[in-house]
Amino acid sequence: MQEIFGGVEAGGTKFVCGIGTMEKGVFDEERFATTSPRQTLVRAIQYFEKQSIRHEIRAIGVGSFGPVDLHKHSPTYGFITHTPKSGWSNTNIVGELEKSLKIPVFFDTDVNAAALGEHVNGAALGIENFIYLTVGTGIGGGGMINGRPVHGQAHPEMGHIRIPHDFTTDPFEGICPYHGDCLEGLASGEAIKSRWGTRADLLPDNHPAWNLEGEYLAMAVVNYICSLSPEKIIIGGGIMQRTQLFDLIRGEVKTLMNNYALPAQILDNLENYIVPPVLRKQAGLFGAIALAQLGFEH
Amino acid sequence: MQEIFGGVEAGGTKFVCGIGTMEKGVFDEERFATTSPRQTLVRAIQYFEKQSIRHEIRAIGVGSFGPVDLHKHSPTYGFITHTPKSGWSNTNIVGELEKSLKIPVFFDTDVNAAALGEHVNGAALGIENFIYLTVGTGIGGGGMINGRPVHGQAHPEMGHIRIPHDFTTDPFEGICPYHGDCLEGLASGEAIKSRWGTRADLLPDNHPAWNLEGEYLAMAVVNYICSLSPEKIIIGGGIMQRTQLFDLIRGEVKTLMNNYALPAQILDNLENYIVPPVLRKQAGLFGAIALAQLGFEH
Repeated sequence: MQEIFGGVEAGGTKFVCGIGTMEKGVFDEERFATTSPRQTLVRAIQYFEKQSIRHEIRAIGVGSFGPVDLHKHSPTYGFITHTPKSGWSNTNIVGELEKSLKIPVFFDTDVNAAALGEHVNGAALGIENFIYLTVGTGIGGGGMINGRPVHGQAHPEMGHIRIPHDFTTDPFEGICPYHGDCLEGLASGEAIKSRWGTRADLLPDNHPAWNLEGEYLAMAVVNYICSLSPEKIIIGGGIMQRTQLFDLIRGEVKTLMNNYALPAQILDNLENYIVPPVLRKQAGLFGAIALAQLGFEH
Repeated sequence: MQEIFGGVEAGGTKFVCGIGTMEKGVFDEERFATTSPRQTLVRAIQYFEKQSIRHEIRAIGVGSFGPVDLHKHSPTYGFITHTPKSGWSNTNIVGELEKSLKIPVFFDTDVNAAALGEHVNGAALGIENFIYLTVGTGIGGGGMINGRPVHGQAHPEMGHIRIPHDFTTDPFEGICPYHGDCLEGLASGEAIKSRWGTRADLLPDNHPAWNLEGEYLAMAVVNYICSLSPEKIIIGGGIMQRTQLFDLIRGEVKTLMNNYALPAQILDNLENYIVPPVLRKQAGLFGAIALAQLGFEH
């Protein structure tokens, strides 16, 4: 039997389970809707039990929606803590998987796992300081600083920074239940839908929604640059399928930075600095597998 | 002779040179105005030559105003690069000191050096993820993530993040020559002086300047928390001598976070989370000495 690793991309809408290795990629994957914690975790466990018949799975990595507890010595390590997602507060993801599967489970945020995937074999290959931002239903961010995932006190909640919001041009109040018009409140998929009354994917490319979206995301990117000085910024997520956003963001970032804090060779070539994920939709699952393998090997 | 280390706090207004060790602190220091690069560096060199008669100085650490080049392999490593400070662009600080003194010189930003000082023997003792913000003539920020100073692509320029600015309550345009109303443009000592027409230290404690200052700094702190999830935030600098600002910032941060992204035990005890530097005015010099000693010993 070949030695392989399991990964779980635990999202608020869907779970993706799979197996593979950092060297050979993903061998197999299965996607299913996120329902109740019990039902969803049982389904994940059944997936790995089935795979264990043919493969020796050494460890599992989980990249999870949150907020999560990443402190190894905390009594709620490996839990989703207080989430607005109904039924999921205080869910012991790591504990449930370890109890049933009897192999080590490694745990991080969904965005940090995706960032790790891009670091191992994607847009951040060889880069020790970068940000991975995902713009979808919500907005999340993670990444690595000094070669390790950013955890800190809890973990970053990059979608919740405050940015300038001109009510005269955009009177929308924002939809974040905690902060109103924070970045997620203004620029997430839910915010776009609420502001314009139409699902983001149904808005035409020439809709004014996109210029506004580019402006808000550019202000956030500028704040991350000034706060962290990343070597690269990867932006994924469903909203970024509207690829025109990349050039809108780059143009606005260049204007806002105004030749400050980054060298000219970067500001003049932002197409190499603000980029989509190379692994695209597989960054999360591949990153979770890498999380398992790196955790197991160290 | 005792083995000791030199430190330089290279500020845009004054230089502080000194000697000491991480274990025993600062033995001696000298302060002088920052004039031309030639004159100022000669004075620093003369200081260390004089100290070398009685002490074996093994290495020197420099915490410098910037922007600086921290990339060891760059042709301009150890330089102040393109600074608005007249005459100081392209000043080779590390090169000049090493050429004259013939001992290793270690280099970082002024704020990262001060942060290191607080990490070695101050408010961030034993803490691997924290931010050090200084609010004075300008606003700068640094700190450590995953136990090492944050450099990244260049180094953080935390004073230049964009924050919400309500022109109806504060019509001031901001004084940042690059960004207008970025944080530094709105909340630095220079901004306060320009907005109110009076030097900040001459404004009475009950002047409306201070509530506004607390609001802007709180928004910045919230953005750093969401971006980095620090375990502590140290705020120093001349403006923070107005100590009432700490409670103003803490109160506003609690409101703005709204029980999100940090646990209740932190948000309910922000007096332990948002704190002044323990080393106060000596953080920069002591940190520069620690930079030399750690660099020399590793």
